[in-house]
Amino acid sequence: MQNSDFISLAHGAGGLLSQQLIREEFMPLLAATDQPLNDAAVVSVGDMRLAFTTDSFVVSPLFFPGGDIGSLAVYGTVNDLAMMGAEPRFLSLALVVEEGFPRADLHQIVGSVAQAAQQVGVPIVTGDTKVVQRGGADGLFANTSGLGVVYEQVQVDPRRVEVGDAILINGSIGDHGIAVMCAREELEVAGEVLSDSAPLAALVKEMIAALGPQVHALRDPTRGGLAATLNEIAQQAQVTVEIRQESIAIKPQVSAICEILGLDPLHVANEGKVVAFVAAEAAQQALSTMKSSPLGLGQQSSIIGEVIAAGPPQVRLQTAIGTTRIVDMPSGELLPRIC
Amino acid sequence: MQNSDFISLAHGAGGLLSQQLIREEFMPLLAATDQPLNDAAVVSVGDMRLAFTTDSFVVSPLFFPGGDIGSLAVYGTVNDLAMMGAEPRFLSLALVVEEGFPRADLHQIVGSVAQAAQQVGVPIVTGDTKVVQRGGADGLFANTSGLGVVYEQVQVDPRRVEVGDAILINGSIGDHGIAVMCAREELEVAGEVLSDSAPLAALVKEMIAALGPQVHALRDPTRGGLAATLNEIAQQAQVTVEIRQESIAIKPQVSAICEILGLDPLHVANEGKVVAFVAAEAAQQALSTMKSSPLGLGQQSSIIGEVIAAGPPQVRLQTAIGTTRIVDMPSGELLPRIC
Repeated sequence: MQNSDFISLAHGAGGLLSQQLIREEFMPLLAATDQPLNDAAVVSVGDMRLAFTTDSFVVSPLFFPGGDIGSLAVYGTVNDLAMMGAEPRFLSLALVVEEGFPRADLHQIVGSVAQAAQQVGVPIVTGDTKVVQRGGADGLFANTSGLGVVYEQVQVDPRRVEVGDAILINGSIGDHGIAVMCAREELEVAGEVLSDSAPLAALVKEMIAALGPQVHALRDPTRGGLAATLNEIAQQAQVTVEIRQESIAIKPQVSAICEILGLDPLHVANEGKVVAFVAAEAAQQALSTMKSSPLGLGQQSSIIGEVIAAGPPQVRLQTAIGTTRIVDMPSGELLPRIC
Repeated sequence: MQNSDFISLAHGAGGLLSQQLIREEFMPLLAATDQPLNDAAVVSVGDMRLAFTTDSFVVSPLFFPGGDIGSLAVYGTVNDLAMMGAEPRFLSLALVVEEGFPRADLHQIVGSVAQAAQQVGVPIVTGDTKVVQRGGADGLFANTSGLGVVYEQVQVDPRRVEVGDAILINGSIGDHGIAVMCAREELEVAGEVLSDSAPLAALVKEMIAALGPQVHALRDPTRGGLAATLNEIAQQAQVTVEIRQESIAIKPQVSAICEILGLDPLHVANEGKVVAFVAAEAAQQALSTMKSSPLGLGQQSSIIGEVIAAGPPQVRLQTAIGTTRIVDMPSGELLPRIC
């Protein structure tokens, strides 16, 4: 049998092979529902629009600088709801635990879930626990699903992205992926890198309150990083986007580790960042709203680029030295198990 | 460290240790939400009552007589919604896949999900896939979460169970657990046992249409079997229930295998059964409604007992030879990974 007859780590990495797997196996499943491939589904129940999403978390190690699987699972799903222009309302929590897993670690993880849920004001209302025999799973996997209510008179959808839109992000990229990888490989680096794992719902709420329908698209650049997110939106909107390297913040330690390991920071996962596409005339207001948002999660926001043309999807990067290069959809393994 | 410092298979088996783990670790998480421990949460959004539930599936083997993890994951979550008196509306699907897993098996499982979802008329609207390295998981785990709309003017809740209530079930017990165990252990038995895995939403809908608020409680006796379900409801309602052995159908092969293995069929999981507590005066109507329900899932329904007293919770069994014994909450490992 060919290699393609088996699932590889790259199928889960958020890049080209992930897209292929989704297209080949899962799109037929979703086809009946008219749901585009976004962070969450938007469904109608009665006269309400609800956002509904699910995410499994297999991050290794379970505890990493700046977070753990518990808070990550809460923030990750809350963020996916926020990216649809929804107010997160309820979460579920399902754990798969390996026989022999320390009760103390379980207690700490559940405590972290509780604390994160309380912080964002979104309760865990239902749950499930399964135990598999020793060797049947790697410690603990978590799944959170979430339910949110889409803000009225708002339609956040990549298909609304248009030429001229400004592209913003609320801070530096690559922190989460590098923090988890350093923890996993026990890399000693000067100046520890912390995960940026954080809840974005309050920031999104303020943006929507300030800008309303001028917010065209929101996405959190997790697996596959900023490169995957921009390529996905370019594909869905059928546009060319151009970003400026000098406007994209990267922490010196993150940059250094990426260089050593041959990673492109544009491909590295974030867990507390939102990429926003807003109408050109709203760009400055979006920037100031993000910068002054609660929790300080947007202090380092910047306008990183624009949508420059309609037509075949493409992501272009103006480099610091004045050249332009194409930013492709990531391919290959990247960083496995970072979320 | 003591044994209790680590998670054991029994913590996931649906019996006493599962209850203890939930009480010690997860109840504090749910405490803020006033959600009793039912198959799903019922939450208010606008003027609607929604049911929301999650379940992870780690069944081994993935394919078993009468079903597979794909259809099981759809039916299991649809059933949990139905047990709250809700009409299932939307499902999510999240997979954790081991590196090296055969694409053909994945394709078959996703196909089974699609077919089951179509059969019950509840679309999969959102999903997620994670891949872990070889040895990091045992093949494939699935999580489905579900969203339903609670039927108007109905409150299905074990706390509404009262003295005199009739207890019904829609057929024979133990089929699913024994089918999976025979497949896993490659037991050769005369007359293959098929899992009863099936969707119960249509049957529940008919019961509620016919009986309305006379349906007091519904629960599907999965992990821990009929014994766990009856004990849970007896605890929540603070009542004594009595069931009659002669009224509880058990297939001869299931009975024989249980006897050989020293299993109590009352402890063995079902995946297509509903235990209904209905007002005494509605017992016969409930029985005839169940018997004539669509898909033939209730043809062998029977009234298996009654709620005989208020007070300290207890489950009693009138045996075929005229004696009475206490049916305890199951303890120990039972059958691991049957769902």
